[in-house]
Amino acid sequence: MESFESKLSHFRTVINERLNEVAVNAQPASFYEPVRYVLEGDGKRIRPILLILACQSVGGDINQCLNAAVAIELLHNFTLVHDDIMDHDDLRRGRITVHKKWDQATAILAGDGLVALAYQNLLKTESDRILEISKIFTEGIIDLCEGQALDKDFESRPEIELNEYMRMIEKKTARLLMIASEIGVIIGRGSQKEQSILGQFSLELGCAFQIRDDVLDIEHSSGKSYASDIRQKKKTILFVHALNHARQNDRDRLQKIYQKPEINSNDIETIRSIFETAGSLSFTLNQVETRINNARAALNKLRLTDAQHDLHELLNLILTRKN
Amino acid sequence: MESFESKLSHFRTVINERLNEVAVNAQPASFYEPVRYVLEGDGKRIRPILLILACQSVGGDINQCLNAAVAIELLHNFTLVHDDIMDHDDLRRGRITVHKKWDQATAILAGDGLVALAYQNLLKTESDRILEISKIFTEGIIDLCEGQALDKDFESRPEIELNEYMRMIEKKTARLLMIASEIGVIIGRGSQKEQSILGQFSLELGCAFQIRDDVLDIEHSSGKSYASDIRQKKKTILFVHALNHARQNDRDRLQKIYQKPEINSNDIETIRSIFETAGSLSFTLNQVETRINNARAALNKLRLTDAQHDLHELLNLILTRKN
Repeated sequence: MESFESKLSHFRTVINERLNEVAVNAQPASFYEPVRYVLEGDGKRIRPILLILACQSVGGDINQCLNAAVAIELLHNFTLVHDDIMDHDDLRRGRITVHKKWDQATAILAGDGLVALAYQNLLKTESDRILEISKIFTEGIIDLCEGQALDKDFESRPEIELNEYMRMIEKKTARLLMIASEIGVIIGRGSQKEQSILGQFSLELGCAFQIRDDVLDIEHSSGKSYASDIRQKKKTILFVHALNHARQNDRDRLQKIYQKPEINSNDIETIRSIFETAGSLSFTLNQVETRINNARAALNKLRLTDAQHDLHELLNLILTRKN
Repeated sequence: MESFESKLSHFRTVINERLNEVAVNAQPASFYEPVRYVLEGDGKRIRPILLILACQSVGGDINQCLNAAVAIELLHNFTLVHDDIMDHDDLRRGRITVHKKWDQATAILAGDGLVALAYQNLLKTESDRILEISKIFTEGIIDLCEGQALDKDFESRPEIELNEYMRMIEKKTARLLMIASEIGVIIGRGSQKEQSILGQFSLELGCAFQIRDDVLDIEHSSGKSYASDIRQKKKTILFVHALNHARQNDRDRLQKIYQKPEINSNDIETIRSIFETAGSLSFTLNQVETRINNARAALNKLRLTDAQHDLHELLNLILTRKN
């Protein structure tokens, strides 16, 4: 049996080859050069790999679903380019973002183009259920937009409920993983039940990933720069939990610190200790564990194949990364 | 026979009703409110009307193609929202633009959402050729992006050939009209020949419209504010023609004026007289006439129906407007 690592590496090579062809030699350069720049970036290609494994887990093969896998990665890159403009981020995967390297107009247009190129590739898929696939893809984009809007809303809202936070990450992070695996199952001619199982797996996986990302922010040993979410006053799950569960005077302190123009190292340690006292850290770690268990339990309902094993490995890979 | 005006008014009512339903009561408000704001604007709904008439001209009816008509209008509005950001425009159809009324992030997201909502409506179309329709729609978006990129390129390029200008307006302006009519024909179960005729009609119509719009800029009696394109240093067809056909010293004067920080009334009259001496004005007027004739000739190849008559009327309406 081929090792999971060598499979991953093979998938990435195939996906990157296709991504490099998407805009090759196309004109005008002012439109396609930024698109090529984005696609040359060193992405992990998690979403297309998930789509391929989902397809294989129900008996399909990579050649059937490669166009859709490429489409999912293009769609993901569209969200990165536009989100980076909205969030004023200068770096992405260690490279200058498109709106910084060129300008905002160029980045808006490159993002728009990536959506269209995503559909162009998706529609090459040979499946008698292409209409259903396109509808799932489209509803996914609408959810991504709603999730991004919710996330932006949170920046200016003083009070946020935990269930609102969960809805936001489901739409903004987990939804794209869900549609990747659902489309993979449909192309591989899986059953409605398999589609639902892999959808559930991806929902849990996506939420675990996002919640864990929030925790890594305050772990010194993580590859992320320490407390950068707090410095940017992000409403992480830790913050949202503490806002709703800390003692009243701790809640007031949290709100006060987030209203300061700049957050210093003392503030960070204050917030950290509030997270611990309020049980926000243990709540969050428990959430990650529960969701990982849910994801694994979903996978175990699938029939045993190499792909099922690989999906377990993919989960381990995604949820043990250090940055 | 129902008058063309009353048909137009009926179509607009039906289209506006559907547009008002697109985002009704949807949440979050930060995403859907700007979308609703855009769709409530007082648009002429030319593109969906063209789609409906194209469908009727081959024997189809409005109920078959209304979802696609709504999709085309949503797509058009996406381009307006994003183009307004890129062009730093504060007003659109007499109303404040989305990025001015809210902010850039909101406008980027509203535009992205409009694309997804466009596909959502398109995919509701009941047609056994929905895959082909979706592909035409998608290639149209790619062309719109390319056209917008070419238009932005022209701002900073000193030399532009006439055929480059034509390619730009074909992609940026005419392409959306072409896909509207082609999709209308396909839904109405027209022949390949009818699709090609109506595609040609719309290409000529779109180019005539854009070229005429350039001429209106220097007509005192037009509803447009006089010479605003020149003041914004736009590379109109008049300017591009003069750049390639005026005497050398006139070309130098044109280039010099467009390099000035601000263009004054004397400059405008200088440019106007260069347009006249170089034959740019007569060339352009002749282009409009030729393309109108081509569009009419294409229409006359269709079998005679009420819709064929209405398409002639639509052409008259679009090409006799004063602003």
